[in-house]
Amino acid sequence: MRNAAQGPISRYFPIVTWSKDYSRETLTSDLVAAVIVTIMLIPQSLAYALLAGLPAEMGLYASILPLVAYAIFGTSRVLAVGPVAVVSLMTAAAIGQLGLETPAEYALAAGTLAFLSGGMLTLMGVLRLGFLANFLSHPVIAGFITASGILIALSQLKHILGVPAHGHTLPALLSSLVSHVTEISFATLIIGAFSLAFLFWVRKGLKPLLSRLGFGSRMADLLAKAGPVAAVAVTTLVTWGLALDTRGVSIVGAVPQGLPPFTAPSFDAALWRDLALAALLISIIGFVESVSVAQTLAAKRRQRIDPDQELIGLGTSNIAAAVSGGYPVTGGFARSVVNFDAGAETPAAGLFTAVGILLAALLLTPLLYFLPKAVLAATIIVAVLSLVDFSILKRAWGYSKVDFAAVTVTILLTLGFGVEVGVASGLLLSIGLHLYKTSRPHVAEVGLVPGTQHFRNILRHDVETHDHLVTLRVDESLYFANARFLEDYVSTRVVCDEPLSDVVLMFSAVNEVDLSALESLEALNLKLKDMGIRLHLSEVKGPVMDRLKRSGFLAHLSGEVYLSQYDAWDALKR
Amino acid sequence: MRNAAQGPISRYFPIVTWSKDYSRETLTSDLVAAVIVTIMLIPQSLAYALLAGLPAEMGLYASILPLVAYAIFGTSRVLAVGPVAVVSLMTAAAIGQLGLETPAEYALAAGTLAFLSGGMLTLMGVLRLGFLANFLSHPVIAGFITASGILIALSQLKHILGVPAHGHTLPALLSSLVSHVTEISFATLIIGAFSLAFLFWVRKGLKPLLSRLGFGSRMADLLAKAGPVAAVAVTTLVTWGLALDTRGVSIVGAVPQGLPPFTAPSFDAALWRDLALAALLISIIGFVESVSVAQTLAAKRRQRIDPDQELIGLGTSNIAAAVSGGYPVTGGFARSVVNFDAGAETPAAGLFTAVGILLAALLLTPLLYFLPKAVLAATIIVAVLSLVDFSILKRAWGYSKVDFAAVTVTILLTLGFGVEVGVASGLLLSIGLHLYKTSRPHVAEVGLVPGTQHFRNILRHDVETHDHLVTLRVDESLYFANARFLEDYVSTRVVCDEPLSDVVLMFSAVNEVDLSALESLEALNLKLKDMGIRLHLSEVKGPVMDRLKRSGFLAHLSGEVYLSQYDAWDALKR
Repeated sequence: MRNAAQGPISRYFPIVTWSKDYSRETLTSDLVAAVIVTIMLIPQSLAYALLAGLPAEMGLYASILPLVAYAIFGTSRVLAVGPVAVVSLMTAAAIGQLGLETPAEYALAAGTLAFLSGGMLTLMGVLRLGFLANFLSHPVIAGFITASGILIALSQLKHILGVPAHGHTLPALLSSLVSHVTEISFATLIIGAFSLAFLFWVRKGLKPLLSRLGFGSRMADLLAKAGPVAAVAVTTLVTWGLALDTRGVSIVGAVPQGLPPFTAPSFDAALWRDLALAALLISIIGFVESVSVAQTLAAKRRQRIDPDQELIGLGTSNIAAAVSGGYPVTGGFARSVVNFDAGAETPAAGLFTAVGILLAALLLTPLLYFLPKAVLAATIIVAVLSLVDFSILKRAWGYSKVDFAAVTVTILLTLGFGVEVGVASGLLLSIGLHLYKTSRPHVAEVGLVPGTQHFRNILRHDVETHDHLVTLRVDESLYFANARFLEDYVSTRVVCDEPLSDVVLMFSAVNEVDLSALESLEALNLKLKDMGIRLHLSEVKGPVMDRLKRSGFLAHLSGEVYLSQYDAWDALKR
Repeated sequence: MRNAAQGPISRYFPIVTWSKDYSRETLTSDLVAAVIVTIMLIPQSLAYALLAGLPAEMGLYASILPLVAYAIFGTSRVLAVGPVAVVSLMTAAAIGQLGLETPAEYALAAGTLAFLSGGMLTLMGVLRLGFLANFLSHPVIAGFITASGILIALSQLKHILGVPAHGHTLPALLSSLVSHVTEISFATLIIGAFSLAFLFWVRKGLKPLLSRLGFGSRMADLLAKAGPVAAVAVTTLVTWGLALDTRGVSIVGAVPQGLPPFTAPSFDAALWRDLALAALLISIIGFVESVSVAQTLAAKRRQRIDPDQELIGLGTSNIAAAVSGGYPVTGGFARSVVNFDAGAETPAAGLFTAVGILLAALLLTPLLYFLPKAVLAATIIVAVLSLVDFSILKRAWGYSKVDFAAVTVTILLTLGFGVEVGVASGLLLSIGLHLYKTSRPHVAEVGLVPGTQHFRNILRHDVETHDHLVTLRVDESLYFANARFLEDYVSTRVVCDEPLSDVVLMFSAVNEVDLSALESLEALNLKLKDMGIRLHLSEVKGPVMDRLKRSGFLAHLSGEVYLSQYDAWDALKR
């Protein structure tokens, strides 16, 4: 509603709206938030680039220009975009299956993937197709995120153990790790285990400690978020001081120092074809993850976000990543919450974060030379294990077996066959199960509750009925998938020994009758007429009635249409 | 209901049920019907085999053993199975794209297609997946049949003109016919045009003539059905007498005389892979066509058919076709109606028809040597043009633009890209459009109609409202595809200048709330709570309420659940 009143400029460039009222107070808030997010983002960006199988600097590059694009086109005030765990894993899986050989080919494919995904997202936004993301049901997303978290944590174990390992599925990762178990590097393992223990403690124990030391709750929270930076600094110093890189500890090594490079995506049709499905799935998953974070945070301040414009914001961010040496990005959960908690008020905080990461790329990269990869792996493991949450299984089991089936299958297929098969199957399964449910709607035979005008299920209640009159309440909209079901249901019901003369269909819960269902109703009307039975309708909704009138169905209907079921009962009882 | 009482033998072998009461009167009725159907089926079988690009005798073979299988396993008393037009066209399209060279390879592929399709149908029947066929909406089927009719008629024009022509799409057929226009054989054209004119007259003018000559209506009808046999006999004699085959008239030629051969389908994995999609589409289309005929005819006699057992009936028929030199079969519309009108009472009529065709294969095939292909083409054209019916376009346009889009796209894609693309797109489009519709449900803000307890849309009716209280009626079940929509809709609605304190969701038309929707409701509840707004529900259905209770949602709900909307109004108004 609000959008209709906006001009196209403020619709497509939300920056125009918020920059008008930009004040000195807002600037301070945004700057503080940006500093905190920058500190958090530096190790994360490096780590996720390694997860994606790319050089560490691509993680930094993916955290600069994309943030600028989102600040211009995005509608969330606090969403922080950049590389995230699940999308990095999906990138690794997509590119890993191409059979590429050189790191340059990997980087080019990653940039192209970002470009394709960005193009798809932008196009979907312009076409206002944001609703498509809704077809991923919550159980499927929850199952997918949980399974991805497990795959990510397992894939990082190789860095902690200091062994090579490959694969994007649970069986492949496990067998690969087991086959290299004799090659474990103990220096690496010690650093990795220390980092893991420290980071878990930071997460659980540091905040209470800081609170006891007299820090305010918010300050304690924010300091705890800087824990990974401490781990990075200490382990880098130790590795340098003890020359651990000569004792089998794998380090990040030389990271180029300077501005993000300008990079052109590949326009090779064969590569596009190979990456198209992965780009689509990354777009959908990235969008769903991002938009749910953005909506949750916007609601807390009574702001709102526009899903279609969000597609454009994320799409342009990915295109920006593609042309500046990055790889697919989206809005991250943890960093957006930090940004929000740190007091960010406008997307300018994102711009300032971009400047912070840019400075890091210009100045800090030489300091990262001795950073052990095991530490980055530990930050990833700690971050993703918080995503692993099997409680959805219990919840779905208690609520609905159909939802339970969707979660279970998504988890198993993601673990067993990788992220693409997992999310695609989850999507198809959600739709399939929904269609299956609605294709066999609940139909209740109802009778009059004595002394009232209410009609209830004859199987559950003690109600009045007549032998010559059957009333069926249809608890679903009628459309092609269940049209024949109803026809068959009624046909079966009327083949009986009673002297049946009237069938009433009670339409109180029928929100739609499509053309297929209309034709089924017509067929049913004729069938019943051939048997000497009249067909009636009751409690037909306005929009449905309008269509039935227009179609001429009512002219051929052997019975009547009654406003209420009680009217029908009253007119037809003997 | 009735099935539950049956034993497994009578469920899987319906023949056990009807053969018990078989009487002399039934035998007479079935025999008469069988004779009439046999006479009709001989030219049809030959013609459809040619349409499928196969030797004429395969049409006869496909009309023998499959009928026996259906008599044993089918549940319709009067369905006549065998080669039909649309499935023959689909067979031609599926095999045509394999790039085969010899007629033997063609025949093997056709048998294998029947075997695959038969296997799929039987498996679907055993798994009780008959409901899957419902996902083809009526408009899509109507559009598909009409477009197929046009393609079939065009593909037969080459036989009438006596020119070679290829292709399975409208552009390919047209350009192929035009490029050969200088090679038209005038002897063939004369025979073809005469046959066409005669058969059209038989269809329209013969019955009135016979009625005027004193025949009863039913007799006149049945005699008119034998028209094609007269055309076959006369043109065969003329071609033989004038030796037209030496003047460019293409004839059927030598048809092997004897029992159907035993044939084994191919078990080549590559061929199976190439044919799998076609087999699936043929199975679905064949089943849908067959089951609608069977249901229509069963209803006229207050009998019923079991769609899952029908799958087994058709599946075994196709397997029977595969092992006896045939190709894919299904229940035909015209021949089943003739069988019904001629008085068939049990599937034994099908058995007798099989014997009739078997006798034809044993005795009559030498007589078919001089039968011009143009005459068979004419019988096909006359038969399929009755399937072409554009009135569905007008009907859909008037009823619903979504249905109209589905028909139009199906017709255009079938004509432009062939039957497989057409039917697959129609299927996906039906499902996609349905999901799109339900993903943006109708939500009405309602108020109290003064002096009543009814609540109606504030945009359509003059109703009472309160500034602090918003009631939204949701006209759709809530599931993953629209869960976020509702959340967003409500979030948008409550961002307003009024002193809003209560939101009521009226659930009278909500037949289901899945886990995704439940989570959206929980998120919405929290969002509104953060804004100081209470969320209430009213008119929640029993099964939905059971689930909500079980999930613990009600414990966290900031507001109440009211039995009726009026209760909610009464409690919340100020």
